Amino acid sequence: MSESTGKAGAAKLFPPERLDRARRAAEDAGLDALLVSPGADLRYLTGYQALPLERLTCLVVPAEGDPFLVVPALEKAAAEASPAGSLGVEIVGFAETDDAYAMIARRLPPHVARFAVDNHMWAEKLLAFQDALPTAQAGLAGDVLSVLRMRKSPAEVEALRRAGAAIDRVHRRIGEWLRPGRTEREIAGDIADAIIAAGHATVDFVIVGSGPNGASPHHEVSDRVVKAGDPVVVDIGGTTAEGYCSDSTRTYAVGEPPAEFRELYEVLLAAQTAQTRAVRPGVTAEQLDAVGRDRIAAAGYGDHFIHRTGHGIGLETHEEPYIVAGSARPLEPGMAFSIEPGIYLPGRFGARIEDIAVCTEDGGERLNLTGRDLVVLPG
Amino acid sequence: MSESTGKAGAAKLFPPERLDRARRAAEDAGLDALLVSPGADLRYLTGYQALPLERLTCLVVPAEGDPFLVVPALEKAAAEASPAGSLGVEIVGFAETDDAYAMIARRLPPHVARFAVDNHMWAEKLLAFQDALPTAQAGLAGDVLSVLRMRKSPAEVEALRRAGAAIDRVHRRIGEWLRPGRTEREIAGDIADAIIAAGHATVDFVIVGSGPNGASPHHEVSDRVVKAGDPVVVDIGGTTAEGYCSDSTRTYAVGEPPAEFRELYEVLLAAQTAQTRAVRPGVTAEQLDAVGRDRIAAAGYGDHFIHRTGHGIGLETHEEPYIVAGSARPLEPGMAFSIEPGIYLPGRFGARIEDIAVCTEDGGERLNLTGRDLVVLPG
Repeated sequence: MSESTGKAGAAKLFPPERLDRARRAAEDAGLDALLVSPGADLRYLTGYQALPLERLTCLVVPAEGDPFLVVPALEKAAAEASPAGSLGVEIVGFAETDDAYAMIARRLPPHVARFAVDNHMWAEKLLAFQDALPTAQAGLAGDVLSVLRMRKSPAEVEALRRAGAAIDRVHRRIGEWLRPGRTEREIAGDIADAIIAAGHATVDFVIVGSGPNGASPHHEVSDRVVKAGDPVVVDIGGTTAEGYCSDSTRTYAVGEPPAEFRELYEVLLAAQTAQTRAVRPGVTAEQLDAVGRDRIAAAGYGDHFIHRTGHGIGLETHEEPYIVAGSARPLEPGMAFSIEPGIYLPGRFGARIEDIAVCTEDGGERLNLTGRDLVVLPG
Repeated sequence: MSESTGKAGAAKLFPPERLDRARRAAEDAGLDALLVSPGADLRYLTGYQALPLERLTCLVVPAEGDPFLVVPALEKAAAEASPAGSLGVEIVGFAETDDAYAMIARRLPPHVARFAVDNHMWAEKLLAFQDALPTAQAGLAGDVLSVLRMRKSPAEVEALRRAGAAIDRVHRRIGEWLRPGRTEREIAGDIADAIIAAGHATVDFVIVGSGPNGASPHHEVSDRVVKAGDPVVVDIGGTTAEGYCSDSTRTYAVGEPPAEFRELYEVLLAAQTAQTRAVRPGVTAEQLDAVGRDRIAAAGYGDHFIHRTGHGIGLETHEEPYIVAGSARPLEPGMAFSIEPGIYLPGRFGARIEDIAVCTEDGGERLNLTGRDLVVLPG
């Protein structure tokens, strides 16, 4: 999929100056080098979408000197054809029996005291770097890169807006598939097809939690047959060809739900609405979390909102900033994150409402625009 | 998908005695504990298919004492409902603001000197364990677990046989989609749908390398339009609901290919056939690699077979044993791996033929059974 964004689009979404910004941020953090293996950080810095494989692919960003990209010889053509090939970064191939870690250590300045790896680098690769640079201390590149990635550029916000609109198109069609007598798995299969049809390149997750399964926040799907009267949590997301993720939850009722569910849903809706309205620069993550949590607690459901309010989103579904108690991080323009409070009654049912929001100069913008009132489908 | 294998099937594919075998192997290797995060190792040991998330999920297998599974509180119900819930292993939940690493360190014996993590554990988690166990040395659980995982049980071989038959069904239908005038991407989209329809739960990769793109072994797809006379490398694989992977490559010609391509293909076919016939216990990985490499070199294409012969396969598409020069590992009954030599002429075309083979007591069994002669489709 590396070619799916045209050269002009890639330059806009993945501008070449990011590499120098990362280099400077590393230098400011006292790091001698960033070592970035395939994943969202590599894509963010170079536009190169490489799969994580046992053979090392690694972008090396020294605090002093030029960055270079090390790839297995047989990936060199693909790397050169990717947006990384247009960055003016040297692409170094290594043969099947070469030690790529030793080669990188040799190319780094001899005084490397601190290096940082991308947070998702595989342990086998981190340990190999620790062996190849035995006197250096290892840290996490995320401490440096997440700060850059957190503040989306206008082009990135546009890409997230397109992803949000795509997943909204799927939620608008849920009534086509969510019916009593069908299993969660059957329904999820139809939804997965629709996620692709709506403009995503991959399906990242499809949660269909019906009845008591909706009370487990990360339940995925099962062979449970949906029954009339069931509340059903539908939490879905995918990644567009541009690389940006969608993630939106709506809770449906299949026929008239229990009265207590309606009551719980109204509490949740008021909490989520208050939270999306509270987004603006300077509000801290924990304050935004509290806006919803306090309302839910005041209604007596405090023990049943058992997770944080949300997570950042961009090239990954879950990234900084996390909207969670204990985080004093102030919101800034360009930050994009989910607002997804939930109320879960074990063994009975659950509800969650989730929108992606972007912090703007003077407030917030919701990227998911399907209605949030309870949708009661034919039961 | 944790429920997609029934309880009986799960017990057969993921038998509970594996945990004790892993514990003993760790003890023999002088390790005080294995720490296993979501991925193939965790699934192998417990049957639990958990997604790798920023919150820690970790199976702890101490050399002395009982194993336990640490999960975020909101994943506890899912973990208990998974095959891991039937193993008699304690499942410990932790709350959103708890330090799970410190909790694990406290539960381990105070004298932990060496621990090992799964090879794909994220760097952020490995560094957190290194911080929580500052006097202990970190190593790779793969050194212990890959030896167990490499030798497939009869139930696992059956699961791989089913996966192989599923991908064979897709290769038999390639002529429906591979036609001049269509782009690689369009063709790959149809193939992806067919991979699911043929009995996989996920599509892992679809490589359609037409004409010169076939000369880049890891080229995926592009918007190149297939032309009459093109050789086309089609390398495809998926994962079944049981968790086992398929991977098979055939090279097609769309209309009569260049004469030199036919020549090259015959060399490749003879090499791949000789390699699949050479599989038997005691033959080493490098010997098996040489069986094909020597033939290809003798025909003058030595510089154009630029990768190893193959990789092990099971719960991951790429795992031990690697069939590569420099590996003196002898084949053993139950080992399953790809045999996929290729010849690549840069700028012109390439060819690769790939079957999964299983080493048996007295030879080898191919799990991919579509014909290996060049299939010339209408051009």
